[in-house]
Amino acid sequence: MAKTLEGNACIGQSGGPTAVINQSLVGAVEEARKHAPIKKILGAVHGTAGMMAETFLDLTRTSQKKLDAVAESPSAALGSCRHKPDEDDCAAILDVLQKHNVRYYFYIGGDDSAQSTDILAGMARREGYEMRCLHIPKTIDNNLMESDHAPGFGSAARFVASALRGDDLDNRSIPGIKVDIIMGRDAGWLAASSVLARQAEGDGPHLIYLPEAPFTVEAFLADVKRVVAEHGRAVIAASEGIRDESGKLWAKRLAEESKADVAGDAFGHFQLSGTGALADYLTMCIKEGVKGIGRVRGDTFGYLQRSFPGFASRVDQREAREVGRAAVRYACQGKDGSVAIKRKKTKKYASYTDLVALERVAGKNREVPKTYIARGGNDIRPSFVDYCLPLVGGLPPTTSLV
Amino acid sequence: MAKTLEGNACIGQSGGPTAVINQSLVGAVEEARKHAPIKKILGAVHGTAGMMAETFLDLTRTSQKKLDAVAESPSAALGSCRHKPDEDDCAAILDVLQKHNVRYYFYIGGDDSAQSTDILAGMARREGYEMRCLHIPKTIDNNLMESDHAPGFGSAARFVASALRGDDLDNRSIPGIKVDIIMGRDAGWLAASSVLARQAEGDGPHLIYLPEAPFTVEAFLADVKRVVAEHGRAVIAASEGIRDESGKLWAKRLAEESKADVAGDAFGHFQLSGTGALADYLTMCIKEGVKGIGRVRGDTFGYLQRSFPGFASRVDQREAREVGRAAVRYACQGKDGSVAIKRKKTKKYASYTDLVALERVAGKNREVPKTYIARGGNDIRPSFVDYCLPLVGGLPPTTSLV
Repeated sequence: MAKTLEGNACIGQSGGPTAVINQSLVGAVEEARKHAPIKKILGAVHGTAGMMAETFLDLTRTSQKKLDAVAESPSAALGSCRHKPDEDDCAAILDVLQKHNVRYYFYIGGDDSAQSTDILAGMARREGYEMRCLHIPKTIDNNLMESDHAPGFGSAARFVASALRGDDLDNRSIPGIKVDIIMGRDAGWLAASSVLARQAEGDGPHLIYLPEAPFTVEAFLADVKRVVAEHGRAVIAASEGIRDESGKLWAKRLAEESKADVAGDAFGHFQLSGTGALADYLTMCIKEGVKGIGRVRGDTFGYLQRSFPGFASRVDQREAREVGRAAVRYACQGKDGSVAIKRKKTKKYASYTDLVALERVAGKNREVPKTYIARGGNDIRPSFVDYCLPLVGGLPPTTSLV
Repeated sequence: MAKTLEGNACIGQSGGPTAVINQSLVGAVEEARKHAPIKKILGAVHGTAGMMAETFLDLTRTSQKKLDAVAESPSAALGSCRHKPDEDDCAAILDVLQKHNVRYYFYIGGDDSAQSTDILAGMARREGYEMRCLHIPKTIDNNLMESDHAPGFGSAARFVASALRGDDLDNRSIPGIKVDIIMGRDAGWLAASSVLARQAEGDGPHLIYLPEAPFTVEAFLADVKRVVAEHGRAVIAASEGIRDESGKLWAKRLAEESKADVAGDAFGHFQLSGTGALADYLTMCIKEGVKGIGRVRGDTFGYLQRSFPGFASRVDQREAREVGRAAVRYACQGKDGSVAIKRKKTKKYASYTDLVALERVAGKNREVPKTYIARGGNDIRPSFVDYCLPLVGGLPPTTSLV
């Protein structure tokens, strides 16, 4: 049995917020209070950036009422960051954590956060400073290895599927061609979830494009012409991360060609969200290449996908709370690692948590398997619906007369 | 007492769909069934376009279960249209209506729809064909004269306010400058509703721009600099219909300057929605004109504002149903006109319907009164919150720790 490690806990949030990242925060805080070896619970303001600056909130005695309100709120209640700590930064963070006698470290984020947690864990080990290091998963992109799915994805998928459903009804009422750009830098899980909007024959999205399949304008226009010929309209869902045949991001290519600012973040990521350029480019291609249709529009769903309030998936909320709690339990069992969600092999959907090694998640990307993608790379197969539907916790009922 | 006019009813939907336009359709159908003089209830598929083509659905015996499902759905269940009938078209429509013995005509739409209903009413009168002509109001833009507010606005305002609230929490967690473009061609009601997202000191949107106040890049950049100096971040809500000092649409100016396609519809409206160009332009201005802030993003909320399912305002749903019912009651009392929503002068919010002359609504635009707009044209006054808050039927509770 692991010896009891007494000390304080530190918890932080990182990367793009989600509708349920605060559920994980609250789950961890609630669970930590149940474990006597954990004394104070420090919330790092703006993640590792706040740790370096020694900016903490004391969450040890925050009221349950406040915690419940936080859990229901989208975005990162402690503040998030896009800062990627290097070795020197991690050394500085470890100094601060030692100074505050932090023995339980929890970091909620994506694969980059698993990586910084892994670096910190290794550094503490080498220095002989005993500290449990747990990565709590979070990402609307759903691209974490070793998990059936990631907390945050189900709620974002619920938003995207509902948005596409409403947009398809809109397009049905005033026919035309509509392009919707969906978040997902390196994996098309979220764009794929748009398929849930299809309820009957003829419903859109009629075409779905992911980063996992090369996108060419020629094939795209041929697809659009075929759909317009069949339905007299077309609703198209495309990932912001679609790439050309050489694997280059279309969004990056457009920015370079237009000599626009090429904005990157500290992780070396190219800016995809917060611009309408890709949607505008694709609608321009359609206007020039598909004759006989007057109405061509493009929307970029943008940050609404990750931070819209009052629309989270109940399943996602529950699971996000649970990964927070599980992380504390694993830590109190003397373990390090990344919490993963696994799916039970039952007919009715059920999940459980597991702990995997940090390095198996750190900095890695889980793509949408080829089996979910239709030949031609322009659609999603029904097997994906079986995978995704339980995660969104139900969709609003809708219908039409025409 | 008006003599009993026996015959069929025709109902159609026009213009941009809303989250509650189907409530009005269903309200009218339900009420029509209660009135013995109304025999068949014909739903025109795609509005006046469907009337000209004699494409009708028989709604006389559609099940209540189906009607209730339709009422809950966003978008126009009968199909909508952007077709503006001229005198010849109206003559053709009147021929079709006479052929089908339509004596009760209901058209759900905005000020353009009131206009076509007015033309049709005049034409029927001159021909001596007795037909009640009722305009049932609908528009997320909230720009109909003679009404306290229009059905569709409350739900769109609920979406916009919630989106801004989520986006402000997102921006608070990862500070930067964020520009959100909101629908509203000729009136800034919907952009103004973004102010409901503000719950505490320091909350965004920090700046709000409407078509009713001239927008200059110089004043805009000065505003942004001031907000960034105060809050270290800035969330900005701008109407797609913002205009320069000469009254010209910024979106149109940008399209002309970039020599992009200048798309117009049959009403002579310039395309504002379905492009990210205005957001991209404003973020570019900020990147060039405001130093010391790395993260500048723009989102265009697009069609989601009007067609998102499962997020309608309960108040808006109820009122939209009621204007449909009221239109039939007025018609059965022998009246023509446009149904208007009025607000009772009670402390607790309450509304009632009234009937106004078609020509007082037809083709007219109701701007946001100057009293709601802050001096400087960059913010909305608290009195607007008192006006708008009851219409959105409550907002999802949210909070943050930082």
